[in-house]
Amino acid sequence: MRIGELSKATGIPVPTIKYYLREGLLPAGERTHANQVSYTAEHAQRLRLIRAMVQVGELPIGTVRTMLAEVDSAERPTDSMLGRLSGALVASRSPGAHADEQELAETAALLQRHGYTRTDSVHVRMIADVLAMLHRLGRPELVGIVDHYADLALQIAETDLATLTAIEDRDNLAESMIIGSVLGEALFAALRRAAHATVSARVFPEDKVDTSSAS
Amino acid sequence: MRIGELSKATGIPVPTIKYYLREGLLPAGERTHANQVSYTAEHAQRLRLIRAMVQVGELPIGTVRTMLAEVDSAERPTDSMLGRLSGALVASRSPGAHADEQELAETAALLQRHGYTRTDSVHVRMIADVLAMLHRLGRPELVGIVDHYADLALQIAETDLATLTAIEDRDNLAESMIIGSVLGEALFAALRRAAHATVSARVFPEDKVDTSSAS
Repeated sequence: MRIGELSKATGIPVPTIKYYLREGLLPAGERTHANQVSYTAEHAQRLRLIRAMVQVGELPIGTVRTMLAEVDSAERPTDSMLGRLSGALVASRSPGAHADEQELAETAALLQRHGYTRTDSVHVRMIADVLAMLHRLGRPELVGIVDHYADLALQIAETDLATLTAIEDRDNLAESMIIGSVLGEALFAALRRAAHATVSARVFPEDKVDTSSAS
Repeated sequence: MRIGELSKATGIPVPTIKYYLREGLLPAGERTHANQVSYTAEHAQRLRLIRAMVQVGELPIGTVRTMLAEVDSAERPTDSMLGRLSGALVASRSPGAHADEQELAETAALLQRHGYTRTDSVHVRMIADVLAMLHRLGRPELVGIVDHYADLALQIAETDLATLTAIEDRDNLAESMIIGSVLGEALFAALRRAAHATVSARVFPEDKVDTSSAS
């Protein structure tokens, strides 16, 4: 298909497609005539993947490039590949406070008590930074929430990996890892907020202003 | 304290503080002399709150202003206040696909089966949009994950609201809602990734390349 058809198939404007081509996120099409370039269904799929990362994941272009390079590498997915993808994701969010060494060690110890075996990652630093920020904001009563979250996050991860391991095809798996990381996070965040609405309707019932008694 | 001391106490540079003052996010200090303005511990606390929203929550300044207006309003927190805060948060993340009316109705029905009572919110649209995107990306096998996520998100919300209702003071509660929404989401996302590392180390063990047998 031509670039205009690719745009129609994906809903992505032609200038944006050209930008992704220039940035090397999208492989060049095949030149069929002097003035005509042809694109395939694979281009459309790649464009949708880029769009998911940019729009839902709000990832910067550099991070998208890193993650696509993982998809295109010849390796089969391993633990370290998921780690690199995950590291690329976390690098796009800057922490607002910096935990000191003791706070970092305490966070690692807390996670180990909950059954986490990898406690030397950038994510553990992020967790420690958020907890440090809660302390600095004078909200120690909110810190305790990490104990509940830690157990629930492990349950989520078990669910995610069970879904991923059911996928046979390697290309499919690498792409699914990215889609699962990016869209899974957006999905869970939206569900958490919808759940807040459900639970808070019970906990903080809306005031019913009785205008008849005010007169 | 003077603006330089406020900067030292919070770790936020003076030009950034001046920007927040101009944008109306931070109330003006008290003019004590012709050329001197004094700030209080409340200014420092407000600055840390802004920083949490901007750096960890990555919220645009307009959203931060909306949320601070909720904190400063005289109302006591109600269901609708949490809803407005939560709506301000979701508005900063644009979905990458648009669910049609049928997909939206199916998502609402799915949530109702899991015990969600508020299924007319922006969050439900976001959930439907993410599911629509998974379908458009040719990943129907990832859609089933929403059933597990829906139950776990309700458990998180129960935990969050139990923590919030333990807080007596109204100002404290409004601020805690914001902090809990923004930092809670960053905290859970980081935990989920740390949990991925733990679970994937078990599921996708790293290849041990045996160089001795290659010769």
